Amino acid sequence: MNKIFASIITIGDELLIGQVVDTNSAWIAQELNKTGISVKHRVAVGDNKEDIIRALNEEQQLADIILITGGLGPTADDITKPLLCEYFGGKMILHQPTLDFIIELFEKKFRRPMTDRNRKQAEVPDTCTVLMNERGTAPGMMFKKGEKIFVAMPGVPHEMKWLMQTHVLPYIAENYHSGFVEHKTLITAGIGESSLADKIQDIEEMIPVHIKLAYLPNFGMVRLRLTGYGKDRNVLLEDLQLQFDLLKDSVAEFLVTEEDLVLEAVVGKLLKEGNQTVSTAESCTGGLIAHLISSVPGASAYFKGSIVSYSNEVKTDLLGVSSEILNNSGAVSEETVIQMATEVRKKLNTDYSVAVSGIMGPDGGTVDKPVGTVWIAVASKNKVQTNVFNLPFDRQRNMQQTAINALNFLRKQIVDNKCG
Amino acid sequence: MNKIFASIITIGDELLIGQVVDTNSAWIAQELNKTGISVKHRVAVGDNKEDIIRALNEEQQLADIILITGGLGPTADDITKPLLCEYFGGKMILHQPTLDFIIELFEKKFRRPMTDRNRKQAEVPDTCTVLMNERGTAPGMMFKKGEKIFVAMPGVPHEMKWLMQTHVLPYIAENYHSGFVEHKTLITAGIGESSLADKIQDIEEMIPVHIKLAYLPNFGMVRLRLTGYGKDRNVLLEDLQLQFDLLKDSVAEFLVTEEDLVLEAVVGKLLKEGNQTVSTAESCTGGLIAHLISSVPGASAYFKGSIVSYSNEVKTDLLGVSSEILNNSGAVSEETVIQMATEVRKKLNTDYSVAVSGIMGPDGGTVDKPVGTVWIAVASKNKVQTNVFNLPFDRQRNMQQTAINALNFLRKQIVDNKCG
Repeated sequence: MNKIFASIITIGDELLIGQVVDTNSAWIAQELNKTGISVKHRVAVGDNKEDIIRALNEEQQLADIILITGGLGPTADDITKPLLCEYFGGKMILHQPTLDFIIELFEKKFRRPMTDRNRKQAEVPDTCTVLMNERGTAPGMMFKKGEKIFVAMPGVPHEMKWLMQTHVLPYIAENYHSGFVEHKTLITAGIGESSLADKIQDIEEMIPVHIKLAYLPNFGMVRLRLTGYGKDRNVLLEDLQLQFDLLKDSVAEFLVTEEDLVLEAVVGKLLKEGNQTVSTAESCTGGLIAHLISSVPGASAYFKGSIVSYSNEVKTDLLGVSSEILNNSGAVSEETVIQMATEVRKKLNTDYSVAVSGIMGPDGGTVDKPVGTVWIAVASKNKVQTNVFNLPFDRQRNMQQTAINALNFLRKQIVDNKCG
Repeated sequence: MNKIFASIITIGDELLIGQVVDTNSAWIAQELNKTGISVKHRVAVGDNKEDIIRALNEEQQLADIILITGGLGPTADDITKPLLCEYFGGKMILHQPTLDFIIELFEKKFRRPMTDRNRKQAEVPDTCTVLMNERGTAPGMMFKKGEKIFVAMPGVPHEMKWLMQTHVLPYIAENYHSGFVEHKTLITAGIGESSLADKIQDIEEMIPVHIKLAYLPNFGMVRLRLTGYGKDRNVLLEDLQLQFDLLKDSVAEFLVTEEDLVLEAVVGKLLKEGNQTVSTAESCTGGLIAHLISSVPGASAYFKGSIVSYSNEVKTDLLGVSSEILNNSGAVSEETVIQMATEVRKKLNTDYSVAVSGIMGPDGGTVDKPVGTVWIAVASKNKVQTNVFNLPFDRQRNMQQTAINALNFLRKQIVDNKCG
């Protein structure tokens, strides 16, 4: 099998000074994987001629397809287009369809005057195939050099994605007959990476060479991913399934899901299956749990809403947390979350509810209740279950981890109620 | 001035198949920048011996400091440590302080049995300086080769950050006397990148060579960043301020903030200054606006809470949106968001409130109200202002953009009320 490799070059000083997190590369890699192309290498360089040229020279040694994002904007710091023109030995010409499109965009959508800079965005090297960009003013460009292809796209995520889906991925699917790459993923909770590795050691050692196992710990859960390569897709899928089933059986007691889903989607699926609904009452997470639940397409089937009671006043007024509880036990207490969960479930008329109250930091901790203390309650028809955590992280990660813990605690209650 | 350069090598198949977004690199780059070190290059490679060695060979040609993250876990796919041992020509030895720490960690914190794999994590190449990791089981390692240093750290973000802050950044500050790098950033809204570039062209052309201007468009706003390099920090800061003031004056009408703050922090600052409070009523964003507002440390001074009315039932029961409004105008309408904003402001007793209702996709659109239609209302003491948007993106980005638009609309109202 002739494996096809890709490299990703991201261009822009903003990536090197850390002002922007590169989410494009992960998306591109996922999409390429689906078509059987492996990303061999990823490199980020600044808006600097010498560095860009070195990256172009080097990546074509490693890969068949070189995808370039960024540096195509209309401003002076965007030097990629003239540089590519020079690199592939062409001259700049006007691409009329792009110009027509930009003119229309400014007239009908932006409703503001078009500038010469925008006009210049319609100029392209005559050595490239233009990939029309219907999502912005910078066209994509494809260059060929021997057996290699180079594709330059804007760094704006939704423009890049549109160009990939409309032009690049179809081109690759048509022109590169490569083997197949398939993944199967399961997620565990409640067991550390090392203990998990011990538990599945015998299985891991017997995994055939065309399948690879990876451990991906995140927020206290470990994702196990099997990746297989093969010429015959059906054979590959069978091989993968066999290994996957072995893995699954040996981690059964810790299994969260055998799909590559985020936790909020797992919870959503369970609720949908049971034709049940959920609401949240959030203090320290400020609406994050509700936002995660509602991020899943189709969430309106099971998510009704939330009361975010960031202040004690709101806990009392909207969720009936008495001043007695607040004075005696405090806002971060089992009593408080029980009341929050019970009341929001009643008020929003849902089958389940989740409530959280905690201290996320950097301030607000005490000796008794240090930063990271979090109470969680899940209410259902006949009971309220609670749990408490002591998180060791910073504010952002404490919030994320609290949301994950709350969703996982909700998931467990749903599963238990189903089985019980 | 002898400029010091760093390279970042991230190791792990999960980065190349796109299962994980690399947020570490952005954080590392920001921190290095503060100490005057520029990141020259960033590269991601898989858990593959040949690729890692090539990256080590190449990056030391480009940089003085090579920071490596990932591949240090206890499982079989983590090959970085033995590879570094071989690369720097040493042998593995036990690092007793690390072992003691791991034993304590399992006894006191994890409360689960320690395995041989965890014990093995205390083994390090005898050619490295161990960087004690008090946040996890994998120690950091520093290797020297001639004038270059190589630092290997785990890829888990909070462990990596702790190692950087405790060991690596202090070491760099002490051992590399480099020049200074300073940034000044302002954020504009309501003007496109090209028009902005035209507007400031005269200023841009006069910017001295030791200062660089970058345009960073994001969610409909453009961030302008000046980066200066210099030996004398005071002179550099003066030079930067001069250019910054020129820029600021010429974009005054579009200026959101002259600090490098996220929008929710800008809003928070305004509210705090005015000793005012805010609440939100969210339909389509499902709590995201509330979560963003509460993500800012100290938000409890001005954020009281939120009612997330994802279902119409909750809009009616908790926010008093009448069935008449829902039937005649619909859940996504000006009437609905006016009622939501008015009611949540009253119920939560805040100075301001923001309400949003929209169709985020992929489903739910109609001919009259296609996916992307969003109504926003901001209520204050004497008035309710509304705005409508038609967003062209996918569900996730529509949600993000709606939150940003709502926060920016709130910001404008606060500023207008102040000035009026």
